[in-house]
Amino acid sequence: MKFGGTSVADLDRIRNVAKRVKAEYDKGNEVAVVVSAMSGVTNQLVAYCQDAGELYDTREYDTIVSTGEQVTVGLLSIVLQGMGVNARSWLGWQLPFRTDNSHGNAQIKEINTSEIEERFKEGQVAVMAGFQGVSPNNRIATLGRGGSDTSAVALAAAMNADRCDIYTDVDGVYTTDPRITPKARKIDRITYEEMLELASVGAKVLQTRSVSMAMRYNTRLQVLSSFEDKPGTLVCGEDEVMEENIVTGIAYSRDEAKITLRGISDNPGIASSIFGAMGDAAINVDMIVQTLSEENRSTDMSFTVGRADLKRAVNALEAIRSKINCDAIESDATVAKVSVVGVGMRSHAGVAQRMFATLADKGINIQLISTSEIKVSVLIAEEYLELAVRSLHTAYGLDNEEAA
Amino acid sequence: MKFGGTSVADLDRIRNVAKRVKAEYDKGNEVAVVVSAMSGVTNQLVAYCQDAGELYDTREYDTIVSTGEQVTVGLLSIVLQGMGVNARSWLGWQLPFRTDNSHGNAQIKEINTSEIEERFKEGQVAVMAGFQGVSPNNRIATLGRGGSDTSAVALAAAMNADRCDIYTDVDGVYTTDPRITPKARKIDRITYEEMLELASVGAKVLQTRSVSMAMRYNTRLQVLSSFEDKPGTLVCGEDEVMEENIVTGIAYSRDEAKITLRGISDNPGIASSIFGAMGDAAINVDMIVQTLSEENRSTDMSFTVGRADLKRAVNALEAIRSKINCDAIESDATVAKVSVVGVGMRSHAGVAQRMFATLADKGINIQLISTSEIKVSVLIAEEYLELAVRSLHTAYGLDNEEAA
Repeated sequence: MKFGGTSVADLDRIRNVAKRVKAEYDKGNEVAVVVSAMSGVTNQLVAYCQDAGELYDTREYDTIVSTGEQVTVGLLSIVLQGMGVNARSWLGWQLPFRTDNSHGNAQIKEINTSEIEERFKEGQVAVMAGFQGVSPNNRIATLGRGGSDTSAVALAAAMNADRCDIYTDVDGVYTTDPRITPKARKIDRITYEEMLELASVGAKVLQTRSVSMAMRYNTRLQVLSSFEDKPGTLVCGEDEVMEENIVTGIAYSRDEAKITLRGISDNPGIASSIFGAMGDAAINVDMIVQTLSEENRSTDMSFTVGRADLKRAVNALEAIRSKINCDAIESDATVAKVSVVGVGMRSHAGVAQRMFATLADKGINIQLISTSEIKVSVLIAEEYLELAVRSLHTAYGLDNEEAA
Repeated sequence: MKFGGTSVADLDRIRNVAKRVKAEYDKGNEVAVVVSAMSGVTNQLVAYCQDAGELYDTREYDTIVSTGEQVTVGLLSIVLQGMGVNARSWLGWQLPFRTDNSHGNAQIKEINTSEIEERFKEGQVAVMAGFQGVSPNNRIATLGRGGSDTSAVALAAAMNADRCDIYTDVDGVYTTDPRITPKARKIDRITYEEMLELASVGAKVLQTRSVSMAMRYNTRLQVLSSFEDKPGTLVCGEDEVMEENIVTGIAYSRDEAKITLRGISDNPGIASSIFGAMGDAAINVDMIVQTLSEENRSTDMSFTVGRADLKRAVNALEAIRSKINCDAIESDATVAKVSVVGVGMRSHAGVAQRMFATLADKGINIQLISTSEIKVSVLIAEEYLELAVRSLHTAYGLDNEEAA
């Protein structure tokens, strides 16, 4: 059971978490709980570090920010004990939960669960601090953003748990963002691959990293609400998803910007220069399209970058402009990406065609297209985003007709 | 160097601390720094624990409250690094700083300073979290009130340090409380024994526990201000205190209450019953006087207890009233204790006599008297406390004539 920051925001909420833990425990389950810092605490601690020194030592940063989870595990253990549940807290260095030396963004190397499993036999509940481990130098190392989800999945995998329940402030994964259409439906079961595509293109429920890990170890994940008492969404292998929809969900991202290079010479090595410059500046490039102009073998190239990286990307391109020999560098930060995701695409043709037809029908121009085995993404003008998502949701039969 | 909560209350003060550390380091010294939590933080964490459960598990309590120091060591290390000083933080479990299993009030068992000393050779400053260690069960254990002072003295003793500087919000130890007389003088040097008597009877600068430890290991302590740049008070062995005053200081305590038992039968075992009852109730008894009445071998007995314990003490006595056979149990919570302290008393007669004469001269009645080798204490009515302290301060030649 993993509870995030909003689920443990104050003592009342921690008591609510304890009730849920006790309910699982009372069913006769062996329970390990992973918790985050009380919401707001980590941000406060990060602010302290930044205030202390711009180029702070990440080992000291980890020593400081890991205290948030340390407080939560102690409090939750006390509350559980008060309810008559035998519980104890575990810090990363106590298990130990071994990581590499990449402080601030450490990778998990090995988890020793023997002590926890020993105590399961005595009916003890393990309350584990998320987001933290201990590095080979015997110092606290944090796992970076979304680290508590990763801790929970790693612990579940290491213990061969039946399930890893991720409690959040939403009650599951939806076919699309319910703020865009009230007809969005909660998904009962979704495959790891689909969840990865939905997470990476905008559904913020689970971090990509923890889903990848769950997929690698075949650990069943459940996303559910810590405030409501009903089943959530199970993220699992394809064999467990009975009814395969062709399309499982519609994702979107506003964090997009398009760069177009006009009239670059179409020589070998040009693409390498362009994307080498992006790589050097640590800028991720997503969709890429190259169009060949007829005359004189010059070409146009378009690609997308994160909106926050746009200015840096353009600067990096200006710096190599003479080398790539281009007529113009154009940029557009008013674009958005919409994706349809579903493992059913593998065995069904016409999915992309339906997407293009639906958007054309609404007069929405498609600027770029990219596809993977289980996803089709298009780049459109941001102003059409909501319309596109709603139209596609209906077109693929995802609407919950009982809703508003 | 040890800095308490008010000295590290915020980042500006932590920067001030870092400057002082750098100054020592720049002189070519090997420096270990022990810090407390930022002021207010520990109280907040304690309040969380109490809110989580009345009968909280002290192991969880320790996990929670130790985070205060963990944050400070990280921040101070970052600030020191920003000033170009090679510094790293150390948590109790990292050294390790081994304690017993008395969570919440643990005793130090063993400190491994080899890693710190190794790094001294590379010019590294050790920034050590005060108040915490690790128990035999590999869990965080805190040292109780005044724990950071104890950590600092223990570390200094383990490393055979030249000196342990305790930085506080006062600039040293005074001959008496300057709020009572502006003529109080800062003491340059004071022996461990005197400091113990002054601390235990009311001077709140250093905890008794850390002074005892310094005395045991002959570790020189200096109490000085973290805000002013001047020498403080050195607490050291008698051989280092050149000019012996007969009386070094006047201490007082308002935390006193007197109980008088009238007409108890003067049989063997009565005192044992009375003080056994106090012991069973975990009530400390301080001054004791027994007076024999002429007739029928009955006697009166008076003694003092902490004011907060008075009610419990009286209840415990009522419970054994028939056994001790007493006529009346009287109590008085409007008393105070005044003590004159000085190693010079050992070799000088007349110290107590001067005290009694001075008080008599002001019309102050002495209710109880107790003495040790280097201290004379009297119990008086609380309303005379300030007058008594000022008169004695003058009588023993302690007044700073330059002051107000």
